[in-house]
Amino acid sequence: MANERTLTIALNTLPRFRAAIACEAYERFGSAAGILAAPAGELTALRGIGPVLAGAVRTLAAERVGEEEQRRARELGITILTLDDPEYPERLRLIPDPPRVLYRLGELLPQDGDGIAVVGARAATAYGRTVAERLGREFGAAGVTVISGLARGIDGCAHRGALAGGGRTAAVLGAGIDRIYPPEHARLAAEISSRGALLSEFPLGSDPEPWHFPLRNRVISGVSRGVVVVEAAVRSGALGTADMALEQGREVFAIPGPITSPTSAGTNRLIRQGAGLVEGARDVLESFPDLAVLLPAADAGPAALAGLSDPERLLLRAIGASPLPIDDIIRVSPGPAAATAALLTALELKGLVRQHPGKIFART
Amino acid sequence: MANERTLTIALNTLPRFRAAIACEAYERFGSAAGILAAPAGELTALRGIGPVLAGAVRTLAAERVGEEEQRRARELGITILTLDDPEYPERLRLIPDPPRVLYRLGELLPQDGDGIAVVGARAATAYGRTVAERLGREFGAAGVTVISGLARGIDGCAHRGALAGGGRTAAVLGAGIDRIYPPEHARLAAEISSRGALLSEFPLGSDPEPWHFPLRNRVISGVSRGVVVVEAAVRSGALGTADMALEQGREVFAIPGPITSPTSAGTNRLIRQGAGLVEGARDVLESFPDLAVLLPAADAGPAALAGLSDPERLLLRAIGASPLPIDDIIRVSPGPAAATAALLTALELKGLVRQHPGKIFART
Repeated sequence: MANERTLTIALNTLPRFRAAIACEAYERFGSAAGILAAPAGELTALRGIGPVLAGAVRTLAAERVGEEEQRRARELGITILTLDDPEYPERLRLIPDPPRVLYRLGELLPQDGDGIAVVGARAATAYGRTVAERLGREFGAAGVTVISGLARGIDGCAHRGALAGGGRTAAVLGAGIDRIYPPEHARLAAEISSRGALLSEFPLGSDPEPWHFPLRNRVISGVSRGVVVVEAAVRSGALGTADMALEQGREVFAIPGPITSPTSAGTNRLIRQGAGLVEGARDVLESFPDLAVLLPAADAGPAALAGLSDPERLLLRAIGASPLPIDDIIRVSPGPAAATAALLTALELKGLVRQHPGKIFART
Repeated sequence: MANERTLTIALNTLPRFRAAIACEAYERFGSAAGILAAPAGELTALRGIGPVLAGAVRTLAAERVGEEEQRRARELGITILTLDDPEYPERLRLIPDPPRVLYRLGELLPQDGDGIAVVGARAATAYGRTVAERLGREFGAAGVTVISGLARGIDGCAHRGALAGGGRTAAVLGAGIDRIYPPEHARLAAEISSRGALLSEFPLGSDPEPWHFPLRNRVISGVSRGVVVVEAAVRSGALGTADMALEQGREVFAIPGPITSPTSAGTNRLIRQGAGLVEGARDVLESFPDLAVLLPAADAGPAALAGLSDPERLLLRAIGASPLPIDDIIRVSPGPAAATAALLTALELKGLVRQHPGKIFART
């Protein structure tokens, strides 16, 4: 009998077995094995599962498909995470309809959980491109991971800016990780996977179907702390990401733009509806007290931060918002283990880090 | 003995006898005559009055100066209003430090009391000019008077837009009405005086001194229902007008712009501080239920408005926000008296106008 993980991965290869539909099925039948064993009549009783999808579930050679998918992923160096995997992004796990399966090429570090999404129009203007690149660079330089969608226009500029700023970035794709879209972003994707990760819920070989993108957008906001929309037309995917972000309880920010520019109509509307008007990374980070610590010391609020050395500040960044065992801190820190331990002690004495039982450290 | 009006006009010719200083003096001594008769020691006891200004008051040949100023104004076709004159703009009378004397070239109609100020940078960009002109045109077409400062840049475009939209406009000057500044706006000023009014608190012949402009700004917002800032640098007169407007309880609106444009830094900041983000006249008018009636019928909210004829809508505009005697309504309406009376009855039957005792009509 194949294990649950393999069956889950197999079910996820069915194109329409996603989001709310998958969540409902797992909830009703308890597991992938339970779903695969369910009578067709009980499957079609669920909202969103018609006879075609029920038939596909019933006839799925789940064990073989799941094992083959895992073998191909291994060959490509891609990690497949299921919902209960400890490496599955914590924030994403908590959205209403998280993907059961997440493909990852590259690595996610603890601080990536505090990433900020920077998204926007594919048909961006020169203004939008400039701003996206600048914003990505500012976040990157502050040690804040930039999340985006690898699309043409704003997304690509945001990723590039993060890399140029020396930071990390992750791209959530609307196709299989082995099917980089758009093709001209292949090289950018490779860089991202070495300084962050490519993520996708779609099985290997999936084309970038139009209906994938709203699903992809919920993952972009799902893995992020907040979402900045740089440019967006009034009816656009980027506004969809903003809606999704609000549903998920994420803060939404927008870059204002000329009222004469159609690609700023969406962002100006967001601001009118209450999104934070943003002129730079600082405006975003100041909304999150625990991220504001990442701003250059000269401008940091609390007096304690002003006196930090660069290695101390880098270590504070590395710790991120959630508590972290010392081994992980040492792993993600640039210096040798002994130096990191000494810095941790210094930060503890300055009241910026607290040690919890089991050598787990957290920002105060 | 010269009358109070003449003495008030004379006192107002003293360059520094303005705003808070004048208000305090009138409050302390009760009248222009009282101020002119006050001992120097009592004058200098007031905040803002030093020995030089006290000396100027004491040695003022008030009767002669006041009569000469009125004679010159008459020759130029300029009306001089004092604070208690029935034609003095009602809103302006109610600000904390209204000018005691207001020069007017042209005419103010009741609906001008519902005017909206459109102001901004002198060093405006092409974007700002386009938007100011468009906004002025939209207000003009909706029958909303555009108030501005006749300055280069945004102000001039706003006035021109209002005129192009077939509307009314008023300019508040930082110099004497007979000293149009900037000189290249002489022709625009003439047009404004025939389709609205030029207003100034400064005596005839006054130069456009830099310190006049903050005073002028309080009058711009003072005569207006709300203020829209189109473009403004972070330290700029237009932001001063916005501050003044907030102190006077006026609503403040701002046009968003590129975060890369210094002349949008001020407006973007205003929006961040709570000013309404505006993309067109509609956004402003919708903030004032009684002005929203001026929007084209197709989009108007209440069903009753959709069925209005053009003459009925024009009459509703003419009535403005405050109750108006039928004689005034007939005077400001384009058609013959009998037609206006019939239209009034129709509007009354539709529940949009109510008749009060003394044949005074008001919008419901």
